Amino acid sequence: MTGALTIAGLGPGDEALVTPEVSAALASATDILGYAPYVARVPARAGLKLHPTDNRMELQRANEALRLASEGQRVVLVSSGDPGVFAMASAVFEALENSPQWQGLSIRVLPGITAMLAAAARAGAPLGHDFCAINLSDNLKPWMTIEKRLRLAAEADFAIAIYNPRSASRPDGFARALEILGESGLGERTVIFARAVSTPEEQIETVTLKQARPEMADMRTLVIIGNSATRRVGRWVYAPRHVR
Amino acid sequence: MTGALTIAGLGPGDEALVTPEVSAALASATDILGYAPYVARVPARAGLKLHPTDNRMELQRANEALRLASEGQRVVLVSSGDPGVFAMASAVFEALENSPQWQGLSIRVLPGITAMLAAAARAGAPLGHDFCAINLSDNLKPWMTIEKRLRLAAEADFAIAIYNPRSASRPDGFARALEILGESGLGERTVIFARAVSTPEEQIETVTLKQARPEMADMRTLVIIGNSATRRVGRWVYAPRHVR
Repeated sequence: MTGALTIAGLGPGDEALVTPEVSAALASATDILGYAPYVARVPARAGLKLHPTDNRMELQRANEALRLASEGQRVVLVSSGDPGVFAMASAVFEALENSPQWQGLSIRVLPGITAMLAAAARAGAPLGHDFCAINLSDNLKPWMTIEKRLRLAAEADFAIAIYNPRSASRPDGFARALEILGESGLGERTVIFARAVSTPEEQIETVTLKQARPEMADMRTLVIIGNSATRRVGRWVYAPRHVR
Repeated sequence: MTGALTIAGLGPGDEALVTPEVSAALASATDILGYAPYVARVPARAGLKLHPTDNRMELQRANEALRLASEGQRVVLVSSGDPGVFAMASAVFEALENSPQWQGLSIRVLPGITAMLAAAARAGAPLGHDFCAINLSDNLKPWMTIEKRLRLAAEADFAIAIYNPRSASRPDGFARALEILGESGLGERTVIFARAVSTPEEQIETVTLKQARPEMADMRTLVIIGNSATRRVGRWVYAPRHVR
């Protein structure tokens, strides 16, 4: 048996949003690694070893996944959403670059429904025109880089999907982000707070930027700021296809 | 029986990338509408009416889908990829805004694996850091808006996913886009040409922006331009999680 590493996206929470490709990988795995709440989504069965780990252990987890695969295991490293969007795939390739002895391993990345697509679908079609995705965590980049990107995204008139807007350890960045977007003249823009989409705790709230309060977001919230043309029709929000 | 409209994403091509949620919607539909090549992906069965239409008929197709749902049919409007990303969902809400008599209809949007996620997964993790998505078609927006967004995206150091880079009716825009990015100092950036990902015609080609030629893209290609930190390790391309 030859080992292999699969980096798989579990989608936002609902099992009906897990692709058959990912389900098949989970069904034939010998070892599942990932942040504990994501590993908990994989059903236990005989012969399957679960390796749940803490948050912020990305590189260590990636190394462990590569090591197990090098020993002949069929390893699946799980992320929520899509593994390539602010998740585990980048950490694996970073670990791989540091460890030439593993560069011949069989590796696959399996895409998943990332949070902004699930949130957009619930709200209507706010990402139907050009958009950007910004991770608001400054654990891995300078806060000034985030501010610069927010200002340029506003100038480009992108819809803006904000990942990781706010957590207990970063309570202030999102308030500052709302200020910056307000200073950029986006006060009347539509803002969607999509929390825990596709889970029993799902909540969707749509307000204007002026009405948005930092407390409306937490670590399970994906925020979408509409572009200048974004419209509401009944309970739906959409970005028109045309720029006139 | 009450009618309903479901706007569903079929993913990039491989049936293993269609979510169970979408498969269930297709299985209980009475009518399927969409651009002919996407409707052709839905298996025929007794009692299911297929309504394939030409490209660029988005608003007419959206109106027809709403009309059939208003008559009590269970209608699924299919897009490839995700219906909310440069696809049919925005057209439906535009049609809905124009037709108040249908605003009480039951409507759902079901997300799918959009082309940039499938392409990124095949290449490694080029969207592992902040990024943007730009539709290069100027059928629905001024070309100058596209140029402005490309320049600002370069300044923001976003990875850039380019949808619809080039078609027979728009042979020149992508060449101009490459020029603009070159003028913005991105000549050494990694560029991924991902064609027909997850289909038998899949092709992935990775070059630098300087080496990129307009003919490398066609209407089935998704192009990803790496950010300034994007790296190659073996056959993989990834955006590091850190900005130093």
